[in-house]
Formats: sequence, structure tokens, C-alpha cells
Amino acid sequence: MSAALPGRRLRPHVKAHKTTALAWLQAARGHTGFTCATVREVEGMAAAGLGTDLLLANEVLDARRLGAVAEAGACVTLAVDSEQTVEAAAAGGVREVVVDVEVGLPRCGCDPADAGRMADLARSKGLEVRGVMGYEGRVMLVEDPEDRLAQTRTAMELLMAAHADVGGELVSAGGTGTYRENTWATEVQAGSYALMDTAYTAAGLPFEQALTVLARVVSTSPKGWAVADLGLKSLGMDHGNPTVPGGLVWFCSDEHTTFSPLDGESFAVGDLVRALPAHVDPTVALHERMHLIDGDDVVETWPVDLRGW
Amino acid sequence: MSAALPGRRLRPHVKAHKTTALAWLQAARGHTGFTCATVREVEGMAAAGLGTDLLLANEVLDARRLGAVAEAGACVTLAVDSEQTVEAAAAGGVREVVVDVEVGLPRCGCDPADAGRMADLARSKGLEVRGVMGYEGRVMLVEDPEDRLAQTRTAMELLMAAHADVGGELVSAGGTGTYRENTWATEVQAGSYALMDTAYTAAGLPFEQALTVLARVVSTSPKGWAVADLGLKSLGMDHGNPTVPGGLVWFCSDEHTTFSPLDGESFAVGDLVRALPAHVDPTVALHERMHLIDGDDVVETWPVDLRGW
Repeated sequence: MSAALPGRRLRPHVKAHKTTALAWLQAARGHTGFTCATVREVEGMAAAGLGTDLLLANEVLDARRLGAVAEAGACVTLAVDSEQTVEAAAAGGVREVVVDVEVGLPRCGCDPADAGRMADLARSKGLEVRGVMGYEGRVMLVEDPEDRLAQTRTAMELLMAAHADVGGELVSAGGTGTYRENTWATEVQAGSYALMDTAYTAAGLPFEQALTVLARVVSTSPKGWAVADLGLKSLGMDHGNPTVPGGLVWFCSDEHTTFSPLDGESFAVGDLVRALPAHVDPTVALHERMHLIDGDDVVETWPVDLRGW
Repeated sequence: MSAALPGRRLRPHVKAHKTTALAWLQAARGHTGFTCATVREVEGMAAAGLGTDLLLANEVLDARRLGAVAEAGACVTLAVDSEQTVEAAAAGGVREVVVDVEVGLPRCGCDPADAGRMADLARSKGLEVRGVMGYEGRVMLVEDPEDRLAQTRTAMELLMAAHADVGGELVSAGGTGTYRENTWATEVQAGSYALMDTAYTAAGLPFEQALTVLARVVSTSPKGWAVADLGLKSLGMDHGNPTVPGGLVWFCSDEHTTFSPLDGESFAVGDLVRALPAHVDPTVALHERMHLIDGDDVVETWPVDLRGW
């Protein structure tokens, strides 16, 4: 990713890994501006010495904790998309904002035609408007590259029109799924590339899924199934069940996954399995630490220190 | 629940709330034996002064942390279902076990016919065998009471046969869904009743869902949707999307839920919503604290102190 989007062209999203040790590796490659999804992520990044340029790509109605981080010396930029969020930014002591524009994903962001008014309002409150952001989230998993490009263009034309009304140097957009197509953005908010997700892997991106959850087989049945000690509480389940290599997953309980061996495979009590979660982001949020491994050796252990809100 | 299953007839399962402050309220009603799903839950309960009788209703291959808790003075009983788990219990310094018997749920538990052999093996290693446990998990959400009773009987006849071979005073089984039907168990491992789940509520049980996730509307669109600041990372998603009262939920992202107002409802930026998670247990595991409320007043704040492993 650093080769494709060097330096500030990439604003890594820390929500994908919630780990300042990994963010430091990204910063060491020249990506010194970061995207955050929560106030806690902003606080934690600043506390870890990574506060050069933190964008909270999300709306808040109470910006006081962010103002305190800015007051302590970090650069904090906040997304705004309404009068209320502009007022919250100013009242909370945040100094810099971007106007969040809705470009086809039904989530946050003002109407593109309303972006200039938001910028004017923000400036009238003494805020510096650094530009715009917009997330073409619906495009991320479009498999056909031409279709992906066409849909990215449609979204980014909306964002560029808003940018013309707003001004500022930033056009912050994109993600792992569109990092090649989105040439409109001045910076791409990609996060998943670092650990990757099964769904993105299926979409033909040149990154590998790096994150597994290590579990142990704690029980086997003469009726043919095995049970590993990972479950709902250690896996992001919104995309469904995890994959157990060599096994067919039947179901997950709070602390268990029941599966049967595929043809030619067998599992014994005590065996370790490396399960692939169906969705990496929420899986990371459930764990206190990640172990960086080289084969079977643990090279480093990283606290997942940006969890919570 | 205390009226139906007084004192030691109920062994509350702490996995459902992971909160020692709530466990203390259960203990104050006479339920001084508890069920745990993880080693961390056992450690945390003992550290909180609730170590009178802790059952880890789960298999482990390394029981040393449990042995340390027992050595420090708590009563720790561990489920075993294989030679390896018996050996792990003995090697780890655990002194008391129950034989976990598979009674129809494809998960842990030995074959009922094998339970006596497990007990003999455990006793040969110097372990005290307190009895049996078995979980009729497949019966929990059976809606028809007669069918639920019939299926509970089928499962418990297997467990009672195993108990005859194993000995000991405990027959530990059941859950919130079968607390009325399971008259075979000497103690019922119910946990969900304390906070309840949407699915159990639908099954006609006389407990109310107590847990909501408080969120704020951070954005609204002229196109009709609203966005609240709770998402995949604050909700157990294995049972699907949360319910937002007055709204139709479209989808959840990491930190957002997009929904549209139902007829006659409207939502404005800044509004608070109390979302009902589709599954309470894994939702609790995502949060650092719970606020006990009376209307809009926060009466107490409880750390969710049994998270992790």
C-alpha cells in the first residue's frame, strides 16, 4: 500500500487495527496522518505520540475530549455535516474541521449541495475548514474493476463539486477497496489493507489476510465433531462464522466453535487451530493484544490499546 | 428467578453479564455458587470475594491458572470430558471436577456411557468428582412448553444415567430457557435471566430485557434516514441487527447504525436512542461498564470486570 500511495497520499484508518504499535509501523513508512473512528482512538493516538495529524472521520455532538487533545498539542480535525456538529466542534475547542459529504452511502455526510453552507458556518465560528471528506463505501466490494472505477467516479464527482464550494486542501476519501481507482482524493482513508478481511481478499486485492485467532481443540466427539475454544465473544460475527482450516464450521457459541473435519483431516484434543474471522475489524476490538508471529515464533506482542469509546 | 430456584438450586452463569457487582446482587439472594465460562471469569470472581463455589463449565488443557486460584483459597471445580482434560486438571492443581456429559448439543461433553470411566480416571489422579454436568442447549428456545419438557426429559435421562455411574452430589444443568422444566438438575446454570435476550423474551419467559445500548443520533439525511453512534463494535451481531425503538434498522457499520423512522416517528441530531442488541451476552463483552438506571437517572455504574480470557 505504501508503494501505491506513498506518504501523505495514504491516511491509514486505525479503526481496522486499534493498535498504536502497528500505527507506528505505518508512520515509519511516511504515513504520518491518520484516520480515526472514535474519540478514544484520537486520544490514544495522541498519547502514543502519533498526533501529527489526526482526522476523526465521524460526527460527534460533544467535542470537549477532542478539544482537550488539541489543547495538549496534537492536530485534531473533526468531520462535520450539520449545524449541530459544527457548533459542537467550536464549543468543544476543536480548531480544524472537514465537511463530511454523503456520496452514495446512506450514513453520515451532508448533501453535496449543502457543503458550502456548512463550510461558511464553520468559518463563521472561527474554525479552519481543511476541505472535504466522503466515503464511497458502497463501492468497496464491487468485484468488476471497470464497474468499481465507474462507481468511484460517480461518488467522487459529487465530492469534487462539494470541494469546489468548500475550499481547503483536503479531499479525504476512499478505502482499501478503491485505493487504485480513487485518484480524485488527495488522501485515501484505507485501513483494512493492514490486516485484511476475507471479503476484501475475495475481491481480488493484492493483500493477504494477516489476522487469525489462535484456538485450541478442547473436546472431540465420537460422533465426528470437534470443539475449539473460540466463539462469539472472540470473533466479529456480523459477516458470519469463522473459517477453521481443515474443518467445516457448524456453529459458534459464546466460547466455542463446533466443527467437523473435512475429508482427510482429523483433529485431536489439544490441537491448535488458526481460525480466520469473517470480519477482522470487530474481531480486533474484542482482544487485549495481538501477537506478531513468524511461523510459530512470537516476534512481538502488541497491546490493542485503542479499544472502547 | 430466585423465587423459582432459591439458594443453591440456582448456580448463576456469570458469562451473561461478566460483572462482579451484579454477581454480588445474585449472591446476596443466596446464590453463592456460580458458573463461569472462562478462566478469567473464575479469577475475577475469586478476586472479588465470590469464590465460595466456582464451576468452570468448560474444558481446558492448561489448568494452572485455575490451580492458582484454588491454592489462594477459592473453591474451583472444573468440567472434564476426556483423558486429556482430566490430566490437565490434575496437573494444574485443580482439586475438584465434574464430568461433562453430552446430552444432545454437539459441543463439549463425553458420551454418557463413558462418564463413569472419566470419573474413575479422575479419582485415580486424586481429584474429587463432585458429580456431572450437561447442557440441554438445543431445548432452550423450543417455544411449546410440552415439547420443551419432553426434550428436557430426554436430555436429562441421559445425564441421570451418567450420574448413576459417576456419583457425587451435583447434577448441574439447565439454563434460563428450561429453568421451569429441568427438575432433574440439582442446580440450574441460568445466566441470561438477569439481563435477558430478545430471543428468550420471544419464547414467553417471565423476565424482561434489561440491557440497552445508549446511543446518540449524530446525523440525519434529507433523504429520510438517521444515523446513531453505535455499531458492530458495540453490539453482539451474531443474532443480527439491533432494534432501535421507533426506527427500522437498515444496517450497522463499525461505529454507526443507519435506520429510518417508523410512521409517526422522527429523529433529530442529538436525540438519544436506547438500542436493544439482538444478543446480550456478546454485547456486554464489548463494554467497559454498565450503568444501572432508574428512568433517566444513573443509580450506579458497574465495571464489566470479567472480560477477556
